[in-house]
Amino acid sequence: MDFDFIKPLVKPAKTKILLLVMDGLGGLPAEKDGETELEAANTPNLDQLTEQGICGLHEPIGPGITPGSGPSHLALFGYDPQKYQIGRGVLAASGIDFELNSGDVAARGNFCTVDKGGVVTDRRAGRISTEKNAELCVLLEKISVPGIEIFIKPVKEHRFLLVIRGADLSEHVLDTDPQAVGEKPLEAKPSSADGERTAALLNTFIEKAATVLKDQHLANMVLLRGFSMLPGWPKFHEVFGLKSAAIAAYPMYLGLAKLVGMKTYPSENKIDDELEILKKHWADFDFFYVHIKSIDSAGEDGDYFRRIRLIEEVDSRIPLIRQLDPDVVIVTGDHSTPAILKAHSWHPVPVILWSKYCRPDSVDRFAERACVSGSLGPHFPAVDLMPLALANALRLDKFGA
Amino acid sequence: MDFDFIKPLVKPAKTKILLLVMDGLGGLPAEKDGETELEAANTPNLDQLTEQGICGLHEPIGPGITPGSGPSHLALFGYDPQKYQIGRGVLAASGIDFELNSGDVAARGNFCTVDKGGVVTDRRAGRISTEKNAELCVLLEKISVPGIEIFIKPVKEHRFLLVIRGADLSEHVLDTDPQAVGEKPLEAKPSSADGERTAALLNTFIEKAATVLKDQHLANMVLLRGFSMLPGWPKFHEVFGLKSAAIAAYPMYLGLAKLVGMKTYPSENKIDDELEILKKHWADFDFFYVHIKSIDSAGEDGDYFRRIRLIEEVDSRIPLIRQLDPDVVIVTGDHSTPAILKAHSWHPVPVILWSKYCRPDSVDRFAERACVSGSLGPHFPAVDLMPLALANALRLDKFGA
Repeated sequence: MDFDFIKPLVKPAKTKILLLVMDGLGGLPAEKDGETELEAANTPNLDQLTEQGICGLHEPIGPGITPGSGPSHLALFGYDPQKYQIGRGVLAASGIDFELNSGDVAARGNFCTVDKGGVVTDRRAGRISTEKNAELCVLLEKISVPGIEIFIKPVKEHRFLLVIRGADLSEHVLDTDPQAVGEKPLEAKPSSADGERTAALLNTFIEKAATVLKDQHLANMVLLRGFSMLPGWPKFHEVFGLKSAAIAAYPMYLGLAKLVGMKTYPSENKIDDELEILKKHWADFDFFYVHIKSIDSAGEDGDYFRRIRLIEEVDSRIPLIRQLDPDVVIVTGDHSTPAILKAHSWHPVPVILWSKYCRPDSVDRFAERACVSGSLGPHFPAVDLMPLALANALRLDKFGA
Repeated sequence: MDFDFIKPLVKPAKTKILLLVMDGLGGLPAEKDGETELEAANTPNLDQLTEQGICGLHEPIGPGITPGSGPSHLALFGYDPQKYQIGRGVLAASGIDFELNSGDVAARGNFCTVDKGGVVTDRRAGRISTEKNAELCVLLEKISVPGIEIFIKPVKEHRFLLVIRGADLSEHVLDTDPQAVGEKPLEAKPSSADGERTAALLNTFIEKAATVLKDQHLANMVLLRGFSMLPGWPKFHEVFGLKSAAIAAYPMYLGLAKLVGMKTYPSENKIDDELEILKKHWADFDFFYVHIKSIDSAGEDGDYFRRIRLIEEVDSRIPLIRQLDPDVVIVTGDHSTPAILKAHSWHPVPVILWSKYCRPDSVDRFAERACVSGSLGPHFPAVDLMPLALANALRLDKFGA
């Protein structure tokens, strides 16, 4: 649903919507004829919510497409992830909680190894330690290029964040990463005329970086990708008329929420800590996004049984959430992370939408196969969940007379 | 999913995808409260595949739209059939295995009857025999028009193929068929400026054709439709990264596969011959399209029971296919051809997608009503099957970080 279509229908109300995202919720059977993690879990409270609500499986992007966390969250927030694409640089800044200003240009950097002729021999510099990375970032941050301020922050292993700040910068600069060993790093080149000056400034930085790093054994050069600026997207509040709060333990998810204008509350990586924050701010907002990371992490680790335990842990807290008396509750994941794949996957994600005014379907079990029969169907576009939540919160006027 | 979106996500793998198309698979009950052909058939092997895989019903074009074989196959190949439209001329060439060169202009021709005043009295020339048609084509092919080479090939009854070959030809020419009796054939007129010369060449041909045919009793004039050239579409391999082979008995299906760049293997109109070819070339390709015509032909003949027998015959060969150890198997039709309609129909088409990494749904019977409950849902867009197949073959990177 286009924002231009939804926005004029939005009307004020006192109702509250809760979006509980169990990251990487969807799974796969661990063995032939077996059950998925969610099917194997004992989830009486989620099952009750399913029985009283409507359910189905959503697709963040489309059939067969495995989403990254950025696009999948944007879809859950109601933003078409094919239209609203986040640059790698901005996402990297979100991921380490670096506060970008409007006008900053961010890039994801890799330390790499080049030989004496300047040819890349390892695009990841042997995956140097994060500690070594941090030391090198301190050195690089000392580089001075007239006209800009430079920020270099370690991310993990060989990856760092570069941010340049100054007047009239542009994100229209092409990657310097040749994407292959055996080639030299590329010059920063503008992708359109307004990127010329920024590209020149970046080339000065890169030259100086090469000098600073030249005696390093492994990390003796840098590659830059995904030059990007804070996007000028419509804000969540402007589109949906909701004063919104995000509660998450990981900077990336808070960063994504910040991109659409939510107020963010960092928490410990513990559900009880997150629920404490939720309770504390319950009176202050119309919309709450609560992000639970642990189930996805267990999936990435390939730990089928830990996923089951963590799902059961979330289930046990559902009564506490319902005690807050939300008007609309959505429980879902941002994507699937089946333990047997140890990675994000394309499989549709179970979703419950509960409200006083939903029309319950016949499903009474929150699990992948059961949700196929739910009234949201087996491949509901994730981006349509927000309009449905607004409707159930009695926050949408009718369309046409 | 747009090709521009999918293409950057495609990654190489060693997995193999098999698309088995049972032409005209979908059916209707022969009587009130009865079973469809597929429901009545005994299909233990397809049922097992359904049980282990995911299923549903696909729509080649959209709700209520009865597809021709061209668009429905393009959809199965992942090409949006509304965007990638094949001209009638090119389709006619495919149908009789005429090898078009790039730059040729093809048209579908009808022999027709005109009265002394040149007014059309029968647009199909009394449906003359194919033999008579062939004789007349020999005469027409002798016509010489300076600047072009002319090919005239019989199709069936009153229908023939016209191909002109030469420098700087254009497909931008309007039909000469007035689409009604009581009117004169139209002149060939350009639909845009670059069609002017081609239209003039065609008018010279038409004039000479009228002279050649003037003493014929029935077929004394020609009508031309669907001027078209080989389209410059993205090739299947470029978009999906799959080295692909098509195995079919009928030229039209091989022609369609050729249009998207598949390597084609003509076979006898027998499933065992097709499977023999499949086995022989199994090591050489990533993607195999196998087309089985007979079930559609039985539908066009209105033969309900022959359809059942032929479906059962295909079922009995499924174990042979699975012995080849494909990574992804799709079994479906290109459209429905219910015996009681004796024609293509708009009804959604049963489809199974099986892979090691699919998330099985609860359906264990390959039949129209059962597939409504499958996790692909009751109206899955056929064009989305290819991205889903690629995902299941672990051939797609994730979208966004």
